Amino acid sequence: MKTITLAHGNGGELMQELIKDIIYYYCGNDILLQQDDAAYLPEVEGELVTTTDSFVVDPIFFPGGDIGKLAVCGTVNDLAVNGAHPLYLTLGLILEEGLEIDKLKRIIKSVAETARKAGVKIAAGDTKVVPQGKGGGIYINTTGLGVVGPDINLQDAKIETGDKIIISGSIGDHGAAILASREEFEVSSALTSDCALLNNLTAQILSSSGGIKFLTDPTRGGLATALHEIAQQKQVTINLEEEILPIKKEVQGLGGILGIDPLYLASEGRVLCVAAAEEAEAVVNAMKDSPIGTGTAVIGEVTGDKSRVCLTTNLGGTRILRPLQKQLLPRLC
Amino acid sequence: MKTITLAHGNGGELMQELIKDIIYYYCGNDILLQQDDAAYLPEVEGELVTTTDSFVVDPIFFPGGDIGKLAVCGTVNDLAVNGAHPLYLTLGLILEEGLEIDKLKRIIKSVAETARKAGVKIAAGDTKVVPQGKGGGIYINTTGLGVVGPDINLQDAKIETGDKIIISGSIGDHGAAILASREEFEVSSALTSDCALLNNLTAQILSSSGGIKFLTDPTRGGLATALHEIAQQKQVTINLEEEILPIKKEVQGLGGILGIDPLYLASEGRVLCVAAAEEAEAVVNAMKDSPIGTGTAVIGEVTGDKSRVCLTTNLGGTRILRPLQKQLLPRLC
Repeated sequence: MKTITLAHGNGGELMQELIKDIIYYYCGNDILLQQDDAAYLPEVEGELVTTTDSFVVDPIFFPGGDIGKLAVCGTVNDLAVNGAHPLYLTLGLILEEGLEIDKLKRIIKSVAETARKAGVKIAAGDTKVVPQGKGGGIYINTTGLGVVGPDINLQDAKIETGDKIIISGSIGDHGAAILASREEFEVSSALTSDCALLNNLTAQILSSSGGIKFLTDPTRGGLATALHEIAQQKQVTINLEEEILPIKKEVQGLGGILGIDPLYLASEGRVLCVAAAEEAEAVVNAMKDSPIGTGTAVIGEVTGDKSRVCLTTNLGGTRILRPLQKQLLPRLC
Repeated sequence: MKTITLAHGNGGELMQELIKDIIYYYCGNDILLQQDDAAYLPEVEGELVTTTDSFVVDPIFFPGGDIGKLAVCGTVNDLAVNGAHPLYLTLGLILEEGLEIDKLKRIIKSVAETARKAGVKIAAGDTKVVPQGKGGGIYINTTGLGVVGPDINLQDAKIETGDKIIISGSIGDHGAAILASREEFEVSSALTSDCALLNNLTAQILSSSGGIKFLTDPTRGGLATALHEIAQQKQVTINLEEEILPIKKEVQGLGGILGIDPLYLASEGRVLCVAAAEEAEAVVNAMKDSPIGTGTAVIGEVTGDKSRVCLTTNLGGTRILRPLQKQLLPRLC
């Protein structure tokens, strides 16, 4: 069983071999294969958008994906929910000494396949190796570059009372699947991460409706945290209806066992959308047309200007959802 | 003494506080403060160039700099030696639980100051926290975006026999300073890293001479590795003159004690340049005009087409410099 050694990170022959045999082999394209310290990019049209994300998920392989797929989806999705067409990713690897090379290959293959599906090229990369006990097997940074067309302007949209809150599918599947696959919890489940690319869905709904006012993906901190950010940033009250929240029984069940509210569990393949009331049905239908949006539902609406998030419970009461404070959920993303 | 906890990475209130009080406080600018999942960039003119690098240096503070300064210099310099004018950096932090918050502040302050000196803006960022024993205090990824003007074309320059090899200062200072500051080696020295921004120097020499055929910075793997890459990529023989190599006595001495050839020790603030013979003097003079190029020297020349690097020793013999194979130097960058 071959493993990563410190020499794979020293700039010398072993590192060159690793890059050639694994990174270039799976991810190679005209830009990456320039093999310069920096990559020259072809001319782009539209407003440039960039985003960066490091992935430190534990375990690195989980039901529904692995850290490679997650690292591409995560950054592509951050571009997509900002209305951008994703074009390029850079790939920064921090490998831990002792990582099996076969595992690295599976992960990089997964990076390459997901990038291909997303229509993005890996433009540049970097590989570092840290000593055993100083890493998590593998950490991945992806930084994305995309362009926004002139017809898209999500930044200035004004969110108003009556606007609808729409989600493209069930909540917290990724977070629950990761927790369930942690050895320390010793739970067995059929939970699968929802980890998926969102760029086709977002392009589709943005071109089919002018009524979309905000898009995001409820990753770290889950739906509640994503809604909090909207409530703070746009100074609106958001009200959710507990009864119609799409939460899988298994996710609810695991949350119950571990004492974690699924509203704070990450999704990695869901779009959260604020849409004008009169456009909500059209948006829902457009989202349902996508293979990853079949579970789309309206889950609440904007009800005022108090910068907070409330939940109308199944019993008819109202609960204010607090921002996430304590540590519930280490390293889900 | 306040330290980083796992909750600083969960997307909730503590993380928002950390970002506001430290990242925005030191690095804030119009683009970063958009506070979206992705950053919209103003229109740029010229060919886009991107590069990515993760920094895992140990120790994170060292004579002449820290991991924050290094992370900005490293990526700015990769853009600079590709002829690009650096514009934006993204900042991906992987913090280890237990890192002192004061140390983080010092590092981010250093990121901000170095970015300001380089004339680049931090456009987007990300913060993750890993459990104690799964990191190195702090790892930093910086991904850079720059533009190359229409008058710069380093990619197609043809390197020929007779071309001169020029370096902007002494070799291996960074690598030696890092090794000397490692506790396990228990050496005391006055060595200082050469960690510095190269973009002013490169802009200056590229505008003052058309004879520059290749620029790089001899970081990981040192001068020998950088020259190997040129020799392989351009299929040329490069000959160095040992007698005229600028290596500080302290670097040579430390190399002797630890059994490490300074030719393989990283620099983090040196430009390595291949220039046409008839332009070499002008390039040397332009480099010497820069405050970080006062130690510029011609150290060798292109002597054939054998894709290798040779050293004419002080005794008059010729030694072929091999590519770096074993692990000499963990985590210098």
